[in-house]
Parts: sequence; structure tokens; C-alpha cells
Amino acid sequence: MSATGFNVDLRDMQFVLFEQLKVQERLAGFDKYAEFDQELYEATLQEAFRVTREVWWPVNGPGDRQGVSLDDQGNVTTPNGFKEAWDAQAEGGWVGFTAEPEWGGIGLPEPVGMAIGEMFTGSCPALSTYAGLSRGVANLLKVYGPEWIQQACIENLFTGVWGGTMCLTEAGAGSSVGDNRAKATPIEGEDGVYHLEGEKIFITGGDQDLTENIIHLVLARAPGAPNGTKGLSIFVVPKFDFEDGARNGAFVVGVEHKMGLSGSATCVLALGDRKPCRGYILGNEGDGMGIMFHMMNEARIAVGIQGLASAAAAYENALAYAKERVQGVALKDMRNPDAAPVTIVNHPDVRRMLMRMRVSVETMRSMLYGTAMRLVFSEHSADEDVRKMHHNHVELMTPICKAHCTDLGFEVCVTAVQTYGGYGYIQEYPVEQHVRDQKISSIYEGTNGIQAMDLLGRKMRKGSGALFMQWLQESGEQLSQAKESGHFADEIAQLEKAQQSLGAAAMHLGGVGAQGNLEGAMLQATPFMELFGTVILGLHALEQALIAQAALDAGASGSDERFYKGKVLNLKFYVSSFLPKAVALSKSIRSGDESCLDEALFQ
Amino acid sequence: MSATGFNVDLRDMQFVLFEQLKVQERLAGFDKYAEFDQELYEATLQEAFRVTREVWWPVNGPGDRQGVSLDDQGNVTTPNGFKEAWDAQAEGGWVGFTAEPEWGGIGLPEPVGMAIGEMFTGSCPALSTYAGLSRGVANLLKVYGPEWIQQACIENLFTGVWGGTMCLTEAGAGSSVGDNRAKATPIEGEDGVYHLEGEKIFITGGDQDLTENIIHLVLARAPGAPNGTKGLSIFVVPKFDFEDGARNGAFVVGVEHKMGLSGSATCVLALGDRKPCRGYILGNEGDGMGIMFHMMNEARIAVGIQGLASAAAAYENALAYAKERVQGVALKDMRNPDAAPVTIVNHPDVRRMLMRMRVSVETMRSMLYGTAMRLVFSEHSADEDVRKMHHNHVELMTPICKAHCTDLGFEVCVTAVQTYGGYGYIQEYPVEQHVRDQKISSIYEGTNGIQAMDLLGRKMRKGSGALFMQWLQESGEQLSQAKESGHFADEIAQLEKAQQSLGAAAMHLGGVGAQGNLEGAMLQATPFMELFGTVILGLHALEQALIAQAALDAGASGSDERFYKGKVLNLKFYVSSFLPKAVALSKSIRSGDESCLDEALFQ
Repeated sequence: MSATGFNVDLRDMQFVLFEQLKVQERLAGFDKYAEFDQELYEATLQEAFRVTREVWWPVNGPGDRQGVSLDDQGNVTTPNGFKEAWDAQAEGGWVGFTAEPEWGGIGLPEPVGMAIGEMFTGSCPALSTYAGLSRGVANLLKVYGPEWIQQACIENLFTGVWGGTMCLTEAGAGSSVGDNRAKATPIEGEDGVYHLEGEKIFITGGDQDLTENIIHLVLARAPGAPNGTKGLSIFVVPKFDFEDGARNGAFVVGVEHKMGLSGSATCVLALGDRKPCRGYILGNEGDGMGIMFHMMNEARIAVGIQGLASAAAAYENALAYAKERVQGVALKDMRNPDAAPVTIVNHPDVRRMLMRMRVSVETMRSMLYGTAMRLVFSEHSADEDVRKMHHNHVELMTPICKAHCTDLGFEVCVTAVQTYGGYGYIQEYPVEQHVRDQKISSIYEGTNGIQAMDLLGRKMRKGSGALFMQWLQESGEQLSQAKESGHFADEIAQLEKAQQSLGAAAMHLGGVGAQGNLEGAMLQATPFMELFGTVILGLHALEQALIAQAALDAGASGSDERFYKGKVLNLKFYVSSFLPKAVALSKSIRSGDESCLDEALFQ
Repeated sequence: MSATGFNVDLRDMQFVLFEQLKVQERLAGFDKYAEFDQELYEATLQEAFRVTREVWWPVNGPGDRQGVSLDDQGNVTTPNGFKEAWDAQAEGGWVGFTAEPEWGGIGLPEPVGMAIGEMFTGSCPALSTYAGLSRGVANLLKVYGPEWIQQACIENLFTGVWGGTMCLTEAGAGSSVGDNRAKATPIEGEDGVYHLEGEKIFITGGDQDLTENIIHLVLARAPGAPNGTKGLSIFVVPKFDFEDGARNGAFVVGVEHKMGLSGSATCVLALGDRKPCRGYILGNEGDGMGIMFHMMNEARIAVGIQGLASAAAAYENALAYAKERVQGVALKDMRNPDAAPVTIVNHPDVRRMLMRMRVSVETMRSMLYGTAMRLVFSEHSADEDVRKMHHNHVELMTPICKAHCTDLGFEVCVTAVQTYGGYGYIQEYPVEQHVRDQKISSIYEGTNGIQAMDLLGRKMRKGSGALFMQWLQESGEQLSQAKESGHFADEIAQLEKAQQSLGAAAMHLGGVGAQGNLEGAMLQATPFMELFGTVILGLHALEQALIAQAALDAGASGSDERFYKGKVLNLKFYVSSFLPKAVALSKSIRSGDESCLDEALFQ
């Protein structure tokens, strides 16, 4: 461990995967994963850690300082070393790690993929954005691509030979995707081929020097299309055409200078400006938004991973620093000028900061890997009802994974800076970069405000509240079973109270909405999101503590004993230090205050 | 107003100064301020706003991008335009705005000085650091300097001809000042003159090209001095010697590359390395820490102003952006694809963010300006008991002004970025810089953890709790009087409950400490600080709402009516959205949880 290096808590990842989710048992029955066992999973994690520590992390800081550059031909150059790190990733199969082997992937199950994603993203978030988009485009094409496009693209994307982008945003159409104005005009005599015109902004990886080709997925509006999202179609726009390899007319005309994530090229992409831009439609005209949502949902969970990954890396750095840095004497020696100074991990306020970071990271990890497990069952269970049940859960959790993990992850990064004191503010240590890189995650892939509205306005209302009812029932069962364990009675009682206060807030907001007061309800979307996330992470702390307590009861010793004891302590800390906020948020939501809507304000 | 410009809420500043604190009446009786009236104060504020908007703000963004540079002779160059902006400040008297005219100052009272400080700091925090230190050094020398040093330095410092620094930190002695190792050896035959040797780090303005000379205040240890803070002495170390103008041996050997505040030179200062370094002692050997605390207390409130200033500037930017930026349709038109898009200030979640920022900024402003008012009475009241009473209040509030305003101010800056969405993350708009510049404020001048320990371990215990008892009594009286107004009964009841929960937390922690469990008590120092700050700002919201309600009852109309109504809405929002957190924090503190102290953790 080191205060300037890249550290990963493999022990905790393995606890989640093998002791909590039991992937090695519960997924063994699926043909898809039959070849894997725990040993192979562990070796895979070890190797991913090696690559990220030895190859990716060394380019993370320098890449931030150097940033990307753009020449006048629209060519983006990524920071020194990114290409080599990209190639190492590609050669190891780390682009398509969850993809099927027939598409060039390793075929790992999603929860293990989460751990790998956490490592790559944490070691160099800027570089990881390019691969995340390659995966997203490939996964979308697996479902919606005509066969010839699938054959042309998917393996190339999953093996890192090609890159991908998603092109939604325009200058006047960010959160409001339906205001897209890019035009798609059918080319006569070429079925499904269009000329695209318009300008897309904030396009991650709009150009780069890492891959041979780039597959842009572009939302645009065909002639006569209605306004709003219903009029949007989606097009595959290759940088170099599939047939003759000719340069297509999608050119980068600008790159943004950002607060962080400087090695990730955020581009202005002009379509059909310098030369004609050909695009191949997916599905039919008007299907664009529905198809793009396939990628967006996946991307939202991936952004949640970014929240976790930066937080975990920042926490590991802060922990290492706190164990190295000598400063001040122990509290009991405060009045003794000759007392020997101690490492700061001994100071209560530093331990409080470390504990907040630790508990946040470990409960987020549990939630994200757990959601990935449910994703597997939602896709591969034999029973349709079981698939549906897990699908419902994933749908409800998606905005929470995105918003809560990025907000809380940012808080962790900020706390890591604070742990370093003045050294946290300078580039010599990595934590200030974690803060800057991480900030974007609460904004892109739908701002966290949009996620909150998705949760409250869409997911909570779906099927007359069926998703939430299912969650209430499941979490109720979890709490009932926990009570039977005979452990943690106080903590379980507090969690029950918090879960009930979440239910009460949901009921209250349902009532506000039913009275037609949409604004009053939506005003509470973000606090409701935070409340929901706070309760869920508490339940994850409980789930882990129960497993740990059983291991302690069974006589765990040495470093195992310390590990399991840590999980029990996590629960106690979470309940005393995080959970009271849930009750406060519920109270705040139910107060019915709408003062900020008053028109006297913000004139 | 503009989303890229510098805006100041002069109306709110004037409300605090003239309607709430009534400086124009309550300070008129002091000889010192007899020449000022409201008209003059207002003209002064207007002029400060003009200078900061027209001269300082234009160098803020470019200065951040350029940063400072250091040559191999130890000369620091500040960003282009800083020198001109510095000179404009000096010529306008804006360095020593609260200093006595006999020392070259304007002689404004502290609360008005807070408003001016807010504007200069908000318009270019990096540049403002240099002047803040000049003032701090001058104010310290006014009290502790031998007359010849006073004559040599003070006017030069207050008029911007010379600059100042405070040199505490060393690589092994940050928060733990008592571990300072810099050496001071008396020079034979020169009374009070020492040779200094050692290396100081994180020295703001350690060198710069803004002023003719720089006065360093250096902590160092004379031969035979005891360990710890008691062995520290303080020395005046000029860059160029007072007598012959010879270059003294304090040279910058490095500047830090930081997350933000790039235009403020953060220096490594080597003493007596390249050539001998002469220092003039203040007071006696061993007086160093006591004297330096004079400057530190002042600096802590100034850093609180930095929290407010960046937050206020970021809020004004976000508000302007929200009123300009068209995106999405009104909630009621959600299902109408032909509805006209609206400015985002109409969206409930955006209004919620704006309201959080607004209420935070306005209550912090009330607290800081109010504390400055008490500072005036603590120094200039004729009655010693009155002076003492106000002094007690300022002592208790100092760590809260520093820590709560910088933590909350940072949150405001982050929320401003979120309000801009993707544009908030790019350098084209100023809010990402506000976040980066602001982050240091929770660290320097004593980390916020140190402030929390000062509050809980020193200020709360002082005189067997006399400072806190006085505050409880004052706030209790405020609440009683508020009840008599007949307004805001619900809000007052909530505030009373929060004030009581603060008292209960204080009692609880007093008990923990009394049992000798120092670690258990100090573990809660930061939550206690946050709790205290949250309650105090609520009381400020109430104080302002009552004044506003009286103005509404008296028939305020037009923009005044909207302004006063806004203050009433602030109270309602604060009580429903901020105050529940106080109760949660109190509950958390009183839980007695000490899980993070367990030795199983962080091994």
C-alpha cells in the first residue's frame, strides 16, 4: 500500500463475490459460466489488479497533466502512454471481459466484471471511458444491429481494435434529449443509409488515436419526424466507412478543457460539415430513443461504478497516507511536550474520516456487485417470473446506483483530500485528481437530478408502484430474517424505522402527485433519491455484517477475524452515523415545504 | 448578471449591514467611525464592487490557467495582470480598508470590511490571499511590534507597498505546530536579532512580484527552548533588510502545483541556506505561539469569508445561468412534444438547488458580518463587561465561522457546478474554478478537524463552559423574543428543538470527557461542529425573517416586497431542509458509537 500508488481491496471484492453473492456456486449452473470456478475468478482478479497497477495507474497522473490535443484535421491525440496502456488492456481481453467468447470476450459474469471495471476505472478513469463506450456500443449492436453490422463491428469493439461513442447531446439539447436538431436525410437508392448533418457536443472519445476505427451511435431526426423524443432515430456512423474504409464526414472540431478527466477527449463532433456523413439506421425511424436507452441503462450502472472506483482508490490512498504520516501526539499525551508523535491513523477525527470513506465504499460495492448479480438472473434464469422479478429490481436500482454512488463517491474523494491535509491539495499526491475526475460522474449519463426524476417519476410509478412494492417486500423479508439471527437487534430496529420512513415518504409523495401537484412532488425527487440510497446501503451493511458474524461465530481467526469484525463495525457505524440522515430526509420530504417554488424568488 | 461574470448581491449586503446590524446607527457613537454614514458606506461598497468586477474578476480565470512561476534565483512571477490588479487595489485603499487612517487605511468598521472582503475574495481568491496576509501581519505588528518595526512596516503593509506572510508549517509540522524544528540563533552584539535556519513549506506569498518588500513572520526555536509549542519564538524576517535594503537569506526554492488557487504562490521557503537569514524577535523567546495566535484567529475568520465569497460568487453565476439557459419544458407540459422549452430556473429540482445555495450564502453572510460586529464591540465598547461578553462570543464563533462556512461554502460551489450540468465541468464557465479554489479553505489556517477540536476541546470547556452558557442564554432570549412577535410559531418551535438537541449533545460530550474518555469525545468534534453551525445559521435565518416580516407588515412593495418575502421563504426552507440534519447529528453524537476506534480497523 502506498499514499501515491494504486491499491485495491481484493479481500473485500472476494468477500462480496464469493461469500455474499456466492457467484462460484449460484452461477455455476448456467452453461455460460460453467467453465469458471472460484480459483479462475480469483486469478482473473489478480491479473486485472496487476495490469491496472503496473500499466494503467502510471499514466493516470501524467495523462491528467498533459490532457488531449486536437490538430486542425480533427485528429485527437491522447496523452503519452495511453496507447500502450490501451493495447495492454486489449491484449489481456480487458475490453470485452463480460462479452461472449464468440465475440472476442472473456465471458465473465457481470458481478466479476464489476470488480474488474472497478479496478480499471479506479486506476485511470480517463482511459477507462473509451473502453466503457466500446462495450456499450457493442452490447447495443448485439441486440439491435443488422447482422452485417454486427459482424463488422462487435468483435472489433470488444477486442479494442475499434472504439465507440454515443452522440446524444447538442448545444441546445442536453438533459432535454427530445430537443435534438441533427438531421438525417435518406440517401436515395441506399436502403437504410442516411446523410447526417448537425453538431454534437460533449462526445466522449469523439476522436482518439487508440483504435483503428470509431463507431458513433448518433441520434438524429429524419424528415417529417415529430417533435420530441418520439421523432428521434439512431444511426451507426463509422469514422471510416465499412466498405471502402473511406473517411466519413464526422469530424471533431473542438475539445473541451475540463475540471478533470483530462485524458478523456470530450469532443464537439460536426456531422456532414467538412464532407458528407453517412449513417446506417438501427431499427426504424422513430426508434432512436428506445434503442439508445438500452445503452444508457448500462452506462448508468457503469457510471455508478465510476463513483465507487474513484472513491475506493481515494480511500485506499488516504488510508495508506494515514498509516505513514507522523503528526501530533496521541490525545492522552496532549499535555506532554516530550511525547513521541504518532501516525495520524491514531487520531479520532482521522479515524472518523477513514470510517466514513470505508463504509461508503464497502456498502456501495455490495450494492453495485449485487445489482450486477440480479442482472445476470434477469437475463439468464430459466423461469420467466424469476427473470421479471430480478429485472424489476435492476430497473428500480439503476438510477440509485448511478446517482447515489456518484454523489457519495464524490464525498469520499473530498474526504480523502481532507485526510491528507495540505498535501491533499497538491498534485504530488493523487487525491485532488480523484476529486476532479470524479465530479463529472454526477453530471453525465443524465444528471443526478434526472436520475432522481427517473426514480420518482417513472420507476416508483411503474405498474402502479409494483417495483417499489417488490422492494419493500424483499427488504422486509431481509429484516425479518435478520431478526431471527439473534444478532444486531438495535441496528435492525433502526433499519426498520428507516425503511418505514422511506415508505412513508413514498406514500406522501404519491399523494402529492395524485393531487396533480407534480411540481411539489418533483421538488423532493433528489432528497427522495438520497433517502432511498441511504436506506439501501444500510441494508447492505446489515447483509454483510450477518455473514461476517456467522464467520466469527464459526471461529475465524487472525486477519480473517479482523476482516469480519470490520464488517460488524461497519454496520454499527452506518446505523449511528449515516442512518439518522434518512429519518431527517424523510421528515424534510414530508414537511410539504414548497418555499423555493414561490415566484418571489429568482426573478 | 451573467453566467460568466462576477455578480454581487449588494441588496443583501446592505440588508445585513443597515437593517439587521444597523452599523450606521450602532457604530456612529464611536469616535473611530464618527465620520461615516450610510451613504458613505453604500458608496464605498459600490466602488469596491466596481473595482472587483472590472479589474479583479478579469484576471481570475486567466490567472488560474497561467499559475505562478519560479526562476532559479527564487523569484516568483504572478500571473499576467495580477500586478495591475494589485496596484488598483492599493491605490483605492482596498488593502487596509479597516486599518486606521494614520496607518494608511480607510478606517471602515469590521462588518463593512467583511462585505468588501467578500467582494475582493470572491472576484479573485488567489490574488486576495496576498492582501489578506499583508493585513494579518500589519495587525499583529500593531500589537506586538517594537515601535521602529511598526514605523517601518505597518503603513507599507496596509497600503500594498509591502506584502506579508505567516511561516508556521514545516514538512514534519503541519497541524502539529509544536513540532517545528526551524532554528533561531541569537547574533552576538545585536539585541533581539537572530540567525534563522530551516525550511518552511506551504508559505502563501513566500515570494511574489507585487510588492517592494515582503515581511515574513516566522516561528522558530531558540537554543535550549523546550519541545512543543512553548519553545517557539516568532521573528520578523524581511525579504530586504530594513536598514540597508540588502537581500536577506529567505529564498523560495519551490512552488506547489495545486488543485486550485493557482495564482496564489504556495512556496517552500529556505531560511539561511543560500545566505544568512536575519530575523527580529517579537516579544520574548517562547512567546511565538501566543503572538501568532493573534494573527491566526483573524485569519480564521478571513478564511470563513473565503468560504462565503466563493459560494456567493458561484451562486450568483448559477442563478444567472439558470435564468438564461433554456432546456426542457415545464413539468405540466411533459407529455406535450410541441410545448415551448423554458429556462431551467422553472424546473423544481433546479429551484431546490438554487434555494440551498441561496439560503446557505445568506445565512453565512449574516453570521460572518454579525461576528464582525461583535468584534467591534469587543474592542471598542466603553464597558469592560460588554467588551468581555462580545469577546466571548467571537471566541466561540471563530472556529465555527472558519469550518462551517468553508464546508458549506464548498457544498455551494459543488451545487453550482451541478446547476450548470455539463457546462459546469468545463473551463468556459467559472464554477469549476470556484470549486477548486475553494477546496483549500477547509484545510489551511488549521484544518476543519482542528477547528472542531478547538471548538469542542477548548472553547466549549473555557471557563467551565461559560462561553457556551452565554450563547445558550443569548439564543434562548432570541427565541423567546421571536415567539412574542406572533410570527413563525412552527419554525421557532423547530429551532428550539434543534437548539435543545445541541445542548443535549454538548452535555453528553461533556460527560464523556469527564469520564476521561477523551478519544470518545473528540471523535464527535466534527459532527458537533456541523451541528452547532447548522443551528446557528437557522437562528440567523430567523433573525432576518423577523426583520423582513416587519417590513412586509409595514407595507413594503415592489422589489422590496419580493426581497423581504425571500427572507421569510429562506426561514421556511432552512427549517424544513437543513434543520432536520441538526437533530440527526445530535442523535448520532449521543449514540455513543465508537466503532471506528476499534483496533481491528485500519491495521
